[in-house]
Amino acid sequence: MTSLRLPGLIDPHVHLREPGAIHKEDFESGTKAALAGGFTTILAMPNTSPPLIDDDSLTLAEIAAAQKAVCDYGIHLGASPQNIETAASLAPRSSGLKLYLDATFGPLHLTDLNIIREHFGRWPHQRPILCHAEDRTLAAVLMVAYLEKRSVHICHVSRRSEIEIIRDAKMRGLDVTCEVGPHHLYLSTDDIPRLGAGRSEVRPRLATPDDVAALWANMDIVDCIATDHAPHTLAEKDSDNPPPGFPGLESSLPLMLTAVHDSRITLDDLVNKMVHNPRRIFDLPEQPDTYVEVDVDGEWTVREKGVSRCGWTPFAGMPVRGQVRRVVLRNQTVYEDGSFFASPGSGRNVAPAHQDKGS
Amino acid sequence: MTSLRLPGLIDPHVHLREPGAIHKEDFESGTKAALAGGFTTILAMPNTSPPLIDDDSLTLAEIAAAQKAVCDYGIHLGASPQNIETAASLAPRSSGLKLYLDATFGPLHLTDLNIIREHFGRWPHQRPILCHAEDRTLAAVLMVAYLEKRSVHICHVSRRSEIEIIRDAKMRGLDVTCEVGPHHLYLSTDDIPRLGAGRSEVRPRLATPDDVAALWANMDIVDCIATDHAPHTLAEKDSDNPPPGFPGLESSLPLMLTAVHDSRITLDDLVNKMVHNPRRIFDLPEQPDTYVEVDVDGEWTVREKGVSRCGWTPFAGMPVRGQVRRVVLRNQTVYEDGSFFASPGSGRNVAPAHQDKGS
Repeated sequence: MTSLRLPGLIDPHVHLREPGAIHKEDFESGTKAALAGGFTTILAMPNTSPPLIDDDSLTLAEIAAAQKAVCDYGIHLGASPQNIETAASLAPRSSGLKLYLDATFGPLHLTDLNIIREHFGRWPHQRPILCHAEDRTLAAVLMVAYLEKRSVHICHVSRRSEIEIIRDAKMRGLDVTCEVGPHHLYLSTDDIPRLGAGRSEVRPRLATPDDVAALWANMDIVDCIATDHAPHTLAEKDSDNPPPGFPGLESSLPLMLTAVHDSRITLDDLVNKMVHNPRRIFDLPEQPDTYVEVDVDGEWTVREKGVSRCGWTPFAGMPVRGQVRRVVLRNQTVYEDGSFFASPGSGRNVAPAHQDKGS
Repeated sequence: MTSLRLPGLIDPHVHLREPGAIHKEDFESGTKAALAGGFTTILAMPNTSPPLIDDDSLTLAEIAAAQKAVCDYGIHLGASPQNIETAASLAPRSSGLKLYLDATFGPLHLTDLNIIREHFGRWPHQRPILCHAEDRTLAAVLMVAYLEKRSVHICHVSRRSEIEIIRDAKMRGLDVTCEVGPHHLYLSTDDIPRLGAGRSEVRPRLATPDDVAALWANMDIVDCIATDHAPHTLAEKDSDNPPPGFPGLESSLPLMLTAVHDSRITLDDLVNKMVHNPRRIFDLPEQPDTYVEVDVDGEWTVREKGVSRCGWTPFAGMPVRGQVRRVVLRNQTVYEDGSFFASPGSGRNVAPAHQDKGS
């Protein structure tokens, strides 16, 4: 077996559905899927039910994670029109503030420029702000960040217009970073007939082949690969009102290793975008004695069912390279050949307030 | 009579409805309303029928104006998703490129960031770009202008968020100018019950009293007073599908002189915002021997019917200061006490290509 040893991967964009929808995923099933995918740190999104916008709701997620997580994690807070002061006060307990500026799954959606600017002004300057901001909304949020003289991280870039304006903004010295999801690199509008309407629903939507080409052509601008793991059950996806989102934790490393095999990126690029850059952008602690062993012999085929509770993937049947065989977290084997050896609750919260406590 | 002599006013934002809807207004009735309001130069908007987006449609407006206009005028081109090259090639025949980025009257509406950026990149750098861009769309277009390293003029600012981000952008050195309409200074959501639903329809909509207060508090940021004269007949305004827009050419100077009388702005402010700044921003020629005589004795009451063909005004019944008695254009009395002495077609086109021809 040809084995590759990688640092533990970091996924800054994961939906774990807890609290509120643990039939799709919870902190245990989701962090197990993370380990199976080579991730030893994940940052969880706040569009749960209830959304994570205040002390009570954040506490619900913190308790669930402390009891169940098998890898390290942070929890992003959600920005609402009403929680400007509250969010800022909770910053030390979170991994970042997420602003939903375009429509997606869940109730969090900000539209007013005043509110957006107030969040940017009030949230601690040195802590991350993440935005779901597509096309011209992205241009707007770049101006807000520029005027507030602070950084901004743009989630799941999917269009030519988006990667190009981020490229140009970086060239002008703006403090902007971005992530791309493997589904926006490997799937396009051309795949919708094959996947079917419900199973191809995702936000941002699958983009055109030209958009996909623009992402690949600008990979030097892409700071992070983020899975945007967004599990829904097949029954939900195949319903009359399919929720948007794909699982991604288990398929992302193989897809990106396939890109390495195909010489579309280098292995250094992969490690930068899946480890070093997210650690720097989200100010995450080092994980000593932590690594992932990957079998890089030959192709294998993505299976429909994995560890994630959702039970499907849009990448099923796709030939890919690289299988995670073993994950070691702080010198302990936590995953090997499909089996988990980490006890629920052994994952650590990476937020500053929790790091300070030690654990 | 206490008489005040002002330079001929410039209105950078006028809808004359020709071609296509001359039952509302045409180049003769509209430019007569302009003279009656103290304006000797108006810039006409392109959301006519057909919209002014190519040689054929621009020619229609040029011919109508050349036959009918009694004051000087420019014609703004409209930006469409298809006319990026065409618009740029017609720049010398126009007074600016108008981008409609939020919904309003007429078919011109751009949404894609790529298209917006291409227009900004392709339109001649030294010629004006005007944007209908509200709230976060305004933030987006500021970023586009910043990245393209060019100026942008923001039409009819109506909200606190808008004037404040323009203020902050100016402080950061962005090359942005803006205009405010007297209706957004003198009317608010509080006036909607009195005016009625149809007669209060306007884009941008009437804003809150807090927004109105923010505009007055930031008058030092406001470069131009623009009427956004947008005539529709009363039958249309009172219909089940009322089009948005107010007439404004005849009421704007009295309203702004009322603001001078009330010490909300100085007379110098008025002349800067209604003459010098629009001349500079739109690179308009001087009009020698041109002035407006205004009777500034006492209050008078705005009448429902004026010179504009639309036959109504939302300011009817409002007590104001300052009545235009006489307008002299290039040493000829063109308006005096309700009578017009300019022959149709005597107005000049201020676009560079037409200036070069002489006339």
